Amino acid sequence: MKSSQATTRRRGRRPAGSRRERSFTLAEVAAAVGGSVVGDPGQVVAGVESLDRATPADLSWVADSGRARDVSASRAAALLVASPADACGRPCVVVANPTLAMAILLAIVRPERRPSPGISRRAHVHRSARMGSGVCVQAGATIEAGATIGAGTIIGAGAFVGEGAEIGRDCRLYPLAAVMERCRVGARCVLHPGAVIGADGFGYIWDGERHRKIPQVGIARLEDDVEVGANAAIDRATFGETVIGRGTKIDNLVQVGHNVQVGELSLLCGQAGIAGSSKLGRRVTLAGQVGVSDHVEIGDGAIVTGQGGIVRGGRIPAGAVVSGMPAAPHRDFLRRAAWIARLPELAHRVEQLERRAEGRQED
Amino acid sequence: MKSSQATTRRRGRRPAGSRRERSFTLAEVAAAVGGSVVGDPGQVVAGVESLDRATPADLSWVADSGRARDVSASRAAALLVASPADACGRPCVVVANPTLAMAILLAIVRPERRPSPGISRRAHVHRSARMGSGVCVQAGATIEAGATIGAGTIIGAGAFVGEGAEIGRDCRLYPLAAVMERCRVGARCVLHPGAVIGADGFGYIWDGERHRKIPQVGIARLEDDVEVGANAAIDRATFGETVIGRGTKIDNLVQVGHNVQVGELSLLCGQAGIAGSSKLGRRVTLAGQVGVSDHVEIGDGAIVTGQGGIVRGGRIPAGAVVSGMPAAPHRDFLRRAAWIARLPELAHRVEQLERRAEGRQED
Amino acid sequence: MKSSQATTRRRGRRPAGSRRERSFTLAEVAAAVGGSVVGDPGQVVAGVESLDRATPADLSWVADSGRARDVSASRAAALLVASPADACGRPCVVVANPTLAMAILLAIVRPERRPSPGISRRAHVHRSARMGSGVCVQAGATIEAGATIGAGTIIGAGAFVGEGAEIGRDCRLYPLAAVMERCRVGARCVLHPGAVIGADGFGYIWDGERHRKIPQVGIARLEDDVEVGANAAIDRATFGETVIGRGTKIDNLVQVGHNVQVGELSLLCGQAGIAGSSKLGRRVTLAGQVGVSDHVEIGDGAIVTGQGGIVRGGRIPAGAVVSGMPAAPHRDFLRRAAWIARLPELAHRVEQLERRAEGRQED
Repeated sequence: MKSSQATTRRRGRRPAGSRRERSFTLAEVAAAVGGSVVGDPGQVVAGVESLDRATPADLSWVADSGRARDVSASRAAALLVASPADACGRPCVVVANPTLAMAILLAIVRPERRPSPGISRRAHVHRSARMGSGVCVQAGATIEAGATIGAGTIIGAGAFVGEGAEIGRDCRLYPLAAVMERCRVGARCVLHPGAVIGADGFGYIWDGERHRKIPQVGIARLEDDVEVGANAAIDRATFGETVIGRGTKIDNLVQVGHNVQVGELSLLCGQAGIAGSSKLGRRVTLAGQVGVSDHVEIGDGAIVTGQGGIVRGGRIPAGAVVSGMPAAPHRDFLRRAAWIARLPELAHRVEQLERRAEGRQED
Repeated sequence: MKSSQATTRRRGRRPAGSRRERSFTLAEVAAAVGGSVVGDPGQVVAGVESLDRATPADLSWVADSGRARDVSASRAAALLVASPADACGRPCVVVANPTLAMAILLAIVRPERRPSPGISRRAHVHRSARMGSGVCVQAGATIEAGATIGAGTIIGAGAFVGEGAEIGRDCRLYPLAAVMERCRVGARCVLHPGAVIGADGFGYIWDGERHRKIPQVGIARLEDDVEVGANAAIDRATFGETVIGRGTKIDNLVQVGHNVQVGELSLLCGQAGIAGSSKLGRRVTLAGQVGVSDHVEIGDGAIVTGQGGIVRGGRIPAGAVVSGMPAAPHRDFLRRAAWIARLPELAHRVEQLERRAEGRQED
Repeated sequence: MKSSQATTRRRGRRPAGSRRERSFTLAEVAAAVGGSVVGDPGQVVAGVESLDRATPADLSWVADSGRARDVSASRAAALLVASPADACGRPCVVVANPTLAMAILLAIVRPERRPSPGISRRAHVHRSARMGSGVCVQAGATIEAGATIGAGTIIGAGAFVGEGAEIGRDCRLYPLAAVMERCRVGARCVLHPGAVIGADGFGYIWDGERHRKIPQVGIARLEDDVEVGANAAIDRATFGETVIGRGTKIDNLVQVGHNVQVGELSLLCGQAGIAGSSKLGRRVTLAGQVGVSDHVEIGDGAIVTGQGGIVRGGRIPAGAVVSGMPAAPHRDFLRRAAWIARLPELAHRVEQLERRAEGRQED
């Protein structure tokens, strides 16, 4: 349903804050997501909603089979499904991946609200900053000398872009996000409120009397399509660059230390932390609250499960799934956890054996 | 000691930053906290302080019995106590809960400093925002189109209220707090500096080439009397609402994922994290650094102790106290921990048994 | 190489964001760091870089022996080394601690970029605030009534200094940092973006119906030379002071609860957390994601390794190295971890013993 395809019927102007959706036909839906209609292609749906929230005017989606109960309970007019059977008899659009189809559709139907281009008179933009076309800088934002802001980028209220920093095109810095001096952010990146790119790394050397600061003269660099969550912090390198690879997504309150290299298309979940100079491959997943110590290497596609910890210098092979602290292969972790749960029993059995042995000795 | 009851003697105007307290009699104290005086009801005390910091002009409190040493060492003029014996002979006011009495008294004696109502000319308030009576908006704050700010609410310096957001009455957004587009905050809520309400949830779907963003079209909603700590982040829902129940208190650096439901009167301590779609009951306590994975359910009154982890889909029954990762009943956790500490010894005992058995075999 | 000693050759003016370094001779380097030249003292180097990034014009350093391979691969013109042998034949300056020498040199060669003194007309400074000489207040910053800013201090864009707060001389508050009402920051402190000093402690008392707030009437106080990372939070005390000792360095996203006392020269690494009223000695190290519960005492020089947890009321002796949750001496932790990994095997051995014993019984 690219805008050229869709026969969109814009509703009348709504008050700020309300949903702004278009209505559309199942044929339009199928065209937008590359699926096929089962039922009346001309049926109109007015919005996209989750199964439990859908009204009889809405389209919903069935993430996977085995949700017959939720589907039956839903009031949705029509469904995105992987198989017609999942629709329980309702009109549907059949696609390979219903959740993906929902995401594609939602981006069309409920496009992000974007402020109008222009620089607020309450923003502070240094005269030497270079601003692309269509840039929006909101009230209270600061853009320092020599910074570059790519075309179409939005700098939210109170956000900060330091001296000589470079922000690519079509980025969004939400309010109160900060990109520090000389750091670089690729195209289409999103920084949520309070995200800090390029604060100093935590580098000191003991001089006999105090922790002397090692000047952090490198930068942090985000490649294209990176998203960084609220209040996350990605430190600049001591020398060179801390790098977040193309398409990597970082959740809230994540900490990435100086000189860390994160590969492309990785996922760092909430409150995960990576200490200095560690190196993550492509499509690595760190689950919530994972801790990666310094000088660690994690191979492509590896997964560290929630609260797992990788000790200094650890090596996690590509494709591994590891858990626990210190981290072990997930299957081993589960087996060990099961045995830890049985430890009191095991200890009792050992005691029984000892008693028997003592008894025999005495015989 | 409601203001109508108290015979307050306001001191002369003091320089900014200093303590501003009234002096009061023990009779007034007893009236304010519902206690009874042991000693001279007319005795005047000038402030409330902890035992170790109290001067001979101050009132202090004895949190529990068995603090005779601290009481003896204290210079306090008088004490709030649960039993006259706890006062070690000093004048006292006897109440059921001395700490509660102290909290009540302190709120009267040292009321929060509130800035004067009015909108700073350095704030940016959209003309379509609706402002209740007595609202204060400080310098550098931004209030977007269609936002609603309830009567008596304070929006601190540099804070942000997004388009169509609704903030209830008598709230306080401290400097640099943010409430994003369309989110809702109930009455008497407090957001500490850097708290972010309603950043996007961490939702992506792999499309074969990249993590495609699932638009996060829901909101975050805080019910009345919620407090959110510094740099905490509460994400908006994918669809529908992320909800923080009435009277729940959230500490610094806590992460609450999209579509999470937290019941009333819960406590989420520092750096705890809750992943998407989990559901916490009423009066749940998550201690510091607890991690709750996605699609977890935690029953009313349950407690997860520090650094505990609840794995995906976990169910914690009402009233349970659980610890460890994966979490187990606290008693079991302690027993297992004790056995883990003795594991080397246990292994040695098994080896001894094996040797004996070998020896016997050889016989 | 104090500025009076060095024969600095300032390069022509460079565009903003580029490196600004001076070139210097090895003799000058040796004088600056207290080392001795091996090779031509007149040799000129143009910058300081890591081994892998150094150009043939740069000086680098060899952190420890056993890096012969990295040294050979480096293009560096000259090296800071602990022993001439570590230079692999290249010109070098021999010093006791090459990393320390690098840090000293770098601070001279690539001094921090400091904005010019002066108060931005876009900043909000209350007329009763006391400003030292040479203070810089950037756009969007707020300084409230009665606050004091020491000479030479920089208040970054959008930063906040509350009523009656005192900031010492030569401090740097990076953009969006906050020092709340009445809190005190010593000389030469650095607060990174989003750091919050003096938000309310997490103190409530159940009154039978709700969590009633205990007013947090104390302050947070940072002694001299403290550095606080991005989005870290240090709470004010309930009564009295939360104190961070002189020269202590705090990493990103660290949480320090109310009434905590951290001694001098300690290191709190990323995402570590300390709950209320705990007391850390001098030169304590908390590694990443460490959790310290309330009312804990940690002795001078103790180290808690990554993700370690100290339970309520715990006592860690001076000089101890502890790991795990609950924390144990690091050696014990390693032994236990090794036995946990072998638990399935141990269980199997117990089972074998039981079978033998059964067999014998049957004999």
